[in-house]
Amino acid sequence: MAMVDGVADGNEAVQIVDPWNVQAGADGIDYDKLIRDFGSDRIPPEMVARMERLTGRRAHPLLRRGTFFSHRELDRILDLYEAKKPFYLYTGRGPSSEALHVGHLVPFLFTKYLQDAFNVPLVIQLTDDEKFFFKDNLSLDEAHRLAYENAKDIIAVGFDITKTFIFSNLDYVGHMYYNICQIQRCVTYRQFKGIFGSNDDYHCGKIAFPAVQAAPSFSSSFPHIFGGKTDVPCLIPCAIDQDPYFRMTRDVAPRLAFIKPALIHSKFVPGLQGAQGKMSSSDPNSAIFVTDNEQQIRKKIMKHAVSGGRETLEEHRRLGGVIERDVAYQYLSFFLDDDEKLLRLRDEYQAGTLLAGDMKKELIDVMVPLIRRIQQARAAVTDDIVKAFMTPRRLVF
Amino acid sequence: MAMVDGVADGNEAVQIVDPWNVQAGADGIDYDKLIRDFGSDRIPPEMVARMERLTGRRAHPLLRRGTFFSHRELDRILDLYEAKKPFYLYTGRGPSSEALHVGHLVPFLFTKYLQDAFNVPLVIQLTDDEKFFFKDNLSLDEAHRLAYENAKDIIAVGFDITKTFIFSNLDYVGHMYYNICQIQRCVTYRQFKGIFGSNDDYHCGKIAFPAVQAAPSFSSSFPHIFGGKTDVPCLIPCAIDQDPYFRMTRDVAPRLAFIKPALIHSKFVPGLQGAQGKMSSSDPNSAIFVTDNEQQIRKKIMKHAVSGGRETLEEHRRLGGVIERDVAYQYLSFFLDDDEKLLRLRDEYQAGTLLAGDMKKELIDVMVPLIRRIQQARAAVTDDIVKAFMTPRRLVF
Repeated sequence: MAMVDGVADGNEAVQIVDPWNVQAGADGIDYDKLIRDFGSDRIPPEMVARMERLTGRRAHPLLRRGTFFSHRELDRILDLYEAKKPFYLYTGRGPSSEALHVGHLVPFLFTKYLQDAFNVPLVIQLTDDEKFFFKDNLSLDEAHRLAYENAKDIIAVGFDITKTFIFSNLDYVGHMYYNICQIQRCVTYRQFKGIFGSNDDYHCGKIAFPAVQAAPSFSSSFPHIFGGKTDVPCLIPCAIDQDPYFRMTRDVAPRLAFIKPALIHSKFVPGLQGAQGKMSSSDPNSAIFVTDNEQQIRKKIMKHAVSGGRETLEEHRRLGGVIERDVAYQYLSFFLDDDEKLLRLRDEYQAGTLLAGDMKKELIDVMVPLIRRIQQARAAVTDDIVKAFMTPRRLVF
Repeated sequence: MAMVDGVADGNEAVQIVDPWNVQAGADGIDYDKLIRDFGSDRIPPEMVARMERLTGRRAHPLLRRGTFFSHRELDRILDLYEAKKPFYLYTGRGPSSEALHVGHLVPFLFTKYLQDAFNVPLVIQLTDDEKFFFKDNLSLDEAHRLAYENAKDIIAVGFDITKTFIFSNLDYVGHMYYNICQIQRCVTYRQFKGIFGSNDDYHCGKIAFPAVQAAPSFSSSFPHIFGGKTDVPCLIPCAIDQDPYFRMTRDVAPRLAFIKPALIHSKFVPGLQGAQGKMSSSDPNSAIFVTDNEQQIRKKIMKHAVSGGRETLEEHRRLGGVIERDVAYQYLSFFLDDDEKLLRLRDEYQAGTLLAGDMKKELIDVMVPLIRRIQQARAAVTDDIVKAFMTPRRLVF
């Protein structure tokens, strides 16, 4: 549950993580504490190894290096896959900015890996309604427009159109209203307050919304995909701040004779300026956007990425860089596939032979082609393609 | 605002009227107090006379005899009509029983009069979602089925299909979601509690729902009827217990740059067994249903209708009947169009020359053909006709 003020006695920053607030404690986000507080499970190395064995492919760097670090019943999903039983993926995005930044991209890159590795259908919810409810100055029309803009960035990640349905809540909610009503009836205001933290000045939209985010966890919300089957299990890749929605969903599921969704949780992608909380789209210097050109990417990384380098060159050579503080290195751990090279960069940095600027250049060499690839793909995403992704229809399943 | 326990010191029954509870005080419902509490206006005789003048037809008995007794801005609607400007009607029903009873029929009979007199479009909301939210043992599928069953009874009242759109919330809510979101964002939980009375154990569906009942008050919820016009004014005929929904709607309207709906409120139709509160569909003897045959109607009226007759024939002849207690007379005042005859019945009853049984026979003579007419019409309502009424489409407007 969120603490409202977020500040404990003595002005120490207190960790707050819920769907609407992420604030790190004095020493950054304590993910062990989150796992304890939320009651999820850490992903053990054996589970990653099992996924590699079952799918016959190397785990995504975001998984094998622990950015996706926590889960609920992922083992059940792997059992299903091993038994050749179906499941589907569900993820989403709240469309509050014109373009996605690298922090937004992470769950989609990972979801694409899951879709490719398991060959399963995927539904992507764009919560334009939620953004309207939670941002005072955003109109519904604007939120809806941003949903369609963001859909283009998401499509550019490379999802398989025959296995992917993207929807705006404003457009699609009617199809899920049966399930939404059933979920809303299961959750009292008192429980809502307990799960999300709130006060009586929360408006009714905020109270109605969690059921809208919960509904896609149940296959009956997509009759056009699952032909009315109500028992196709769901796996949700998401950042861990979204977990409260799905704890609620999992509590409700058995009462509706639905299957609890499984989850795989990621840590937050730090902003360029450090690891306190999430990357923010309101500060353009804190994030690399999918619309940034090569020069912008280069400049943002060189100028704004917090480094673990020492005060002077001499000191750096003598003491080595502080890898834990180095944002460029962290980003490389997300996006650089080559394990050996990553290890070598780390060792040389800690030994003081690799300088902070060198590490940043390595990151630029990875980010520029990644963003360029997405930009090229996005340029090819026409309105017709968006419409095709967002039309309710049968998927390969 | 509803009082939760409804019982004051000394076990006196306290009047409670809100959308979810109607309980009369010791002396029945005090409608003057309701008008004061709710802040609506009594319909003055001049307003009825003006309606007659403008529409060129005699006011409906339910209006000229004061069953529809209260309003909000009905004068504004009459001004519009006089200026040949458009408006539309909105009413509804919560489908909780297999068939409508006479109490349910009253607002629809009156709405038909309004539609015919003003020649305007009409939307009828069937709140299957609400009934699911408020009745513990009702499934969504059953509520949805009852909506379609009830639609047949409503159609049998004789609405003009070229000017009437009937919809189930479960089917249609997606079309109104834009407006629902906007309304929900305007109402805090604190305000919800103030308007409807509630406690923190109310589930989220109950809190989400008022916006769903509010949305049809705005013409933009029906683009297929009004072609995207957001400024067609709305008049809502309803029983006064529904007023809290529309007080909320009227509060919200200017903040969304929408027009406040006008209202015309009815009193409650008493059950056969007396005037304490509303007729109830859970007690079959308290109500005449549209499915009752002649014999059932006769028996219910003769056996169960509370009469104002005296203990003995001699006493009745000497003292006269108590017209205020006589349910048969009250029903006649709703349904018997002939003013002169009604007056004569009253006078003879009070003089003791007309007996309680005679009054009941007069009612039977009115009710049997009325119910028979509806039954005959209902028998002709096919599934295709229901579907036609419930398909979003252009109306004559």
